[in-house]
Amino acid sequence: MKNKSMRISYPASQKIYIPGKIHDIHVGMRQISLLDTISVENGIEKKEKNAPVVVYDSSGSYSDNDCAIDISKGLSRLREPWIERRNDTENLSSFSSAYCRKRLSDANLDAIRFPQENLPRRASKGKNITQMYYARQGIITPEMEYVAIRENGQNETLGINSPITPEFVRDEVAAGRAVIPANINHPEAEPMIIGTNFLVKINTNIGNSALSSGIEEEVEKAVWSCKWGGDTLMDLSTGNNIHETREWIVRNTPVPVGTVPIYQALEKVDGKITDLCWEIYRDTLIEQCEQGVDYFTIHAGLLRAHLPLVKRRTTGIVSRGGSIIANWMTQRKEENFFYTRFEEICEILKQYDVAVSLGDGLRPGSINDANDDAQFAELSVLGELTKTAWKHHVQVLIEGPGHVPLHKIKANMDEQVKHCHGAPFYTLGPLTTDIAPGYDHITSAIGAAQIAWQGTAMICYVTPKEHLGLPDKEDVRAGVIAYKIAAHAADLAKGHPGAQIRDNALSKARFDFRWKDQFNLSLDPEKALEYYKAGRTGDESDHCTMCGPHFCAMKLSKGVCP
Amino acid sequence: MKNKSMRISYPASQKIYIPGKIHDIHVGMRQISLLDTISVENGIEKKEKNAPVVVYDSSGSYSDNDCAIDISKGLSRLREPWIERRNDTENLSSFSSAYCRKRLSDANLDAIRFPQENLPRRASKGKNITQMYYARQGIITPEMEYVAIRENGQNETLGINSPITPEFVRDEVAAGRAVIPANINHPEAEPMIIGTNFLVKINTNIGNSALSSGIEEEVEKAVWSCKWGGDTLMDLSTGNNIHETREWIVRNTPVPVGTVPIYQALEKVDGKITDLCWEIYRDTLIEQCEQGVDYFTIHAGLLRAHLPLVKRRTTGIVSRGGSIIANWMTQRKEENFFYTRFEEICEILKQYDVAVSLGDGLRPGSINDANDDAQFAELSVLGELTKTAWKHHVQVLIEGPGHVPLHKIKANMDEQVKHCHGAPFYTLGPLTTDIAPGYDHITSAIGAAQIAWQGTAMICYVTPKEHLGLPDKEDVRAGVIAYKIAAHAADLAKGHPGAQIRDNALSKARFDFRWKDQFNLSLDPEKALEYYKAGRTGDESDHCTMCGPHFCAMKLSKGVCP
Repeated sequence: MKNKSMRISYPASQKIYIPGKIHDIHVGMRQISLLDTISVENGIEKKEKNAPVVVYDSSGSYSDNDCAIDISKGLSRLREPWIERRNDTENLSSFSSAYCRKRLSDANLDAIRFPQENLPRRASKGKNITQMYYARQGIITPEMEYVAIRENGQNETLGINSPITPEFVRDEVAAGRAVIPANINHPEAEPMIIGTNFLVKINTNIGNSALSSGIEEEVEKAVWSCKWGGDTLMDLSTGNNIHETREWIVRNTPVPVGTVPIYQALEKVDGKITDLCWEIYRDTLIEQCEQGVDYFTIHAGLLRAHLPLVKRRTTGIVSRGGSIIANWMTQRKEENFFYTRFEEICEILKQYDVAVSLGDGLRPGSINDANDDAQFAELSVLGELTKTAWKHHVQVLIEGPGHVPLHKIKANMDEQVKHCHGAPFYTLGPLTTDIAPGYDHITSAIGAAQIAWQGTAMICYVTPKEHLGLPDKEDVRAGVIAYKIAAHAADLAKGHPGAQIRDNALSKARFDFRWKDQFNLSLDPEKALEYYKAGRTGDESDHCTMCGPHFCAMKLSKGVCP
Repeated sequence: MKNKSMRISYPASQKIYIPGKIHDIHVGMRQISLLDTISVENGIEKKEKNAPVVVYDSSGSYSDNDCAIDISKGLSRLREPWIERRNDTENLSSFSSAYCRKRLSDANLDAIRFPQENLPRRASKGKNITQMYYARQGIITPEMEYVAIRENGQNETLGINSPITPEFVRDEVAAGRAVIPANINHPEAEPMIIGTNFLVKINTNIGNSALSSGIEEEVEKAVWSCKWGGDTLMDLSTGNNIHETREWIVRNTPVPVGTVPIYQALEKVDGKITDLCWEIYRDTLIEQCEQGVDYFTIHAGLLRAHLPLVKRRTTGIVSRGGSIIANWMTQRKEENFFYTRFEEICEILKQYDVAVSLGDGLRPGSINDANDDAQFAELSVLGELTKTAWKHHVQVLIEGPGHVPLHKIKANMDEQVKHCHGAPFYTLGPLTTDIAPGYDHITSAIGAAQIAWQGTAMICYVTPKEHLGLPDKEDVRAGVIAYKIAAHAADLAKGHPGAQIRDNALSKARFDFRWKDQFNLSLDPEKALEYYKAGRTGDESDHCTMCGPHFCAMKLSKGVCP
């Protein structure tokens, strides 16, 4: 494994840390410095200071020049002391998963193995260690205070009171309306929160398939996703060496990592669906819990009774996990074991504080299938499972569609609220039309903005390669930025405290012809600068590159009605 | 001028012409052929035919292999016989505009001049020749029947009854709820309709500024815009040789062409705003009417009384036309002459059937300025002017914002409906956040889909270069496709008859692994194919390129619940 420098830098930006008031924590943020506004009045030049802008930062210590970065060592284990201090977990002397132990003892894998071994941690006997459990006991954990500070961004530095207090975070987590994915075996991740009353988050998917890409490329994509603003990361690998690839990713990713464990379970039976069984799946769950995966997509709501509903569809089942378990049920003539074993699954997850993301195996894959009986039948089962998980204090996300035309989006949110007791909704898009392969980051950003505005807590990105192939780095960037736009558009529409500060600062910079500030404040400073340079012909200090010197509206605007 | 081949071709597509029932007209459409669906049942291969899909076609005769294309001759003059047959116009023996005559007699311009001279046509004395006038007389013109057929697409070929009949078109135009931009001097353009009860249309902007591009590049961009689906085209040139550039564009563009005449008027006074006057503007209007411009943006609703409202704004005035007239008012201390001379303007426009697009000079240029007093004060004046124009049977569009967060979009549509008597709304985006320069085709496609769903009839595209520079060809393509997506998403949401046929056909192709059909049915077949090829590793005839052979959900889906 080459140790590429994965350093992340943003122009005119400084990493700052805001300390906690309750706990000894330091929340990393990005502060963007701005130039002065210069104006001329009666021939005299006037300067006006512009306050720096503090923005949410998902890049972890990759953007901190004072931190050493070495991907063969992994990120520093930020949450380890917090977890230790709680004194309710134990260090295991070996990994519990038989498969994991087999991989570790296989010398053929040495070359691709992550060089450090971190033995796993698990809840002590009789202890519940989930953030939801703590919240329900009235405890504010360091994780809760961390996310409260993180959500407030600029408000914190300005001393502005925000409704998002550590107490509020605790109450939302206790009620199940918000999730802090925080596996005790992924102490490298910076805590973040997913809930309708918080900033809209975006998930990015990476992962190789049998057809593509290696470990190093996946780690690079993970860091790249964090650079552009990915809040969580799902590793959807289905090829060889899933275990080892994931270890590299988890150890080097500063955001929560999710997986769909059935993918790996299916690899373990060489793709023979009928050979899948609870024992293999269970071992896979434990393997991944002990590696540090923060949330699992589990398609536990898709029942045998739903299968006949699929026959009427235009595009059948388009969820990979959903199609696997549907085939298993069809061939084995048995009920979905994710469903029948759901209490046992919760028993495992709660020992590590792994959240469950209840998968929508029957999400519509085309406009024609949107909001059909199959989709909503499954959704109501997800509501039932939510209650079960919460009984164990296991945190829950609910996954949603898919392909949905604009006028049918609201019904999705309404049904989710109706059935799922306020658990955060986490949707893929939705894509608002089927007719634009190659541009589905856009078809879906339109739907994602809409559903996030209506309350969806996290939106899963779609890249331009959706339906056509696996994303490369540039596709990841395009997908993340499209979704940052959708999320921010929703934050503005929901009136999230302070969300508009960045828009206002950027627009003022634009009006002042402070071009550099405009770029530095933007979601993708590099792209903005690149486009600007392409159109630049000379001195654009007092007009814009679109209109030219005589036709610049903003320039002319300054002379209006003095 | 090199005579590049501007031929447009779409894969597996055939140009078809649907004849009129009332008039001798032939409406060009694109018919996409599909492969058979092949399935295997009990070891026997079964073939099922898939009906071809007919889609709306804005590419004119560029996509008809039976038509000769020669840009130095211009497109064939489709509507000329229809206009002649009405016998209410006269052929002028020379151009009425002094400026136009001066340009024509300047030998220095011979090298860049369009080689054919078409003398202009004007309404005969005492005649009103607008589509609105005819509609109000109960007349169904060939233009009206043409758009009725065009809007129905596939329904026509299937013989399905649609509520969009020629009578319906006539009634909508009579009521002012729809506009058919159809200058009698642009007989090359294929009729199209803009109205809330029709398919959502997209406008594209091209045009050079003092800083960039030449005539040939602009003609190429115009044809390119039509290829990807632009429904109308605004020429916003502000550099040299505007008159000659426009002649080339109008003669070679199969869609209606719009302009902002004040841009050229300002060039005529060398950029000195105070030198602008009614006489120069009037001559410019006539010059452009006789060249064949189909609609003019005129910022007649921005009054002196509004100017103090601008001072409070974050980004002042961002409309070029708005800022010019605002400066003129400030410096001359006079009321906006577009407003004071509006009846005279209508007297000119109606002689050629040029539509007026009432400009929103005070559209917000930032989230912070959205829906402010300035914006809505101007909008209410646009409503007053609508009544004035309709008195002359001049067709009217109302321009709208700009930068508006999602939750404030509906109020824009509501205010427009309240003040503007049902005249079609034509908006720029709106952009739903300010923080993504380089991606404003996406920030604005989100807003455009939303406002179009709520009733906006035409959305003006925004390219990735917005705020940063002028778009090149690839930017035009990216902007057009983003807006075709937004428009189609809105058509689906509004339940436009037949809009979903293409989605259904594409999704069925996807589920069948008819890859070529999937690409051919998509908005950008070339891009889809390019991305597919990049990810392709072998035979993908029974699985998708994303999941690989063992994990393809759609493949597995076929085995569910047989």
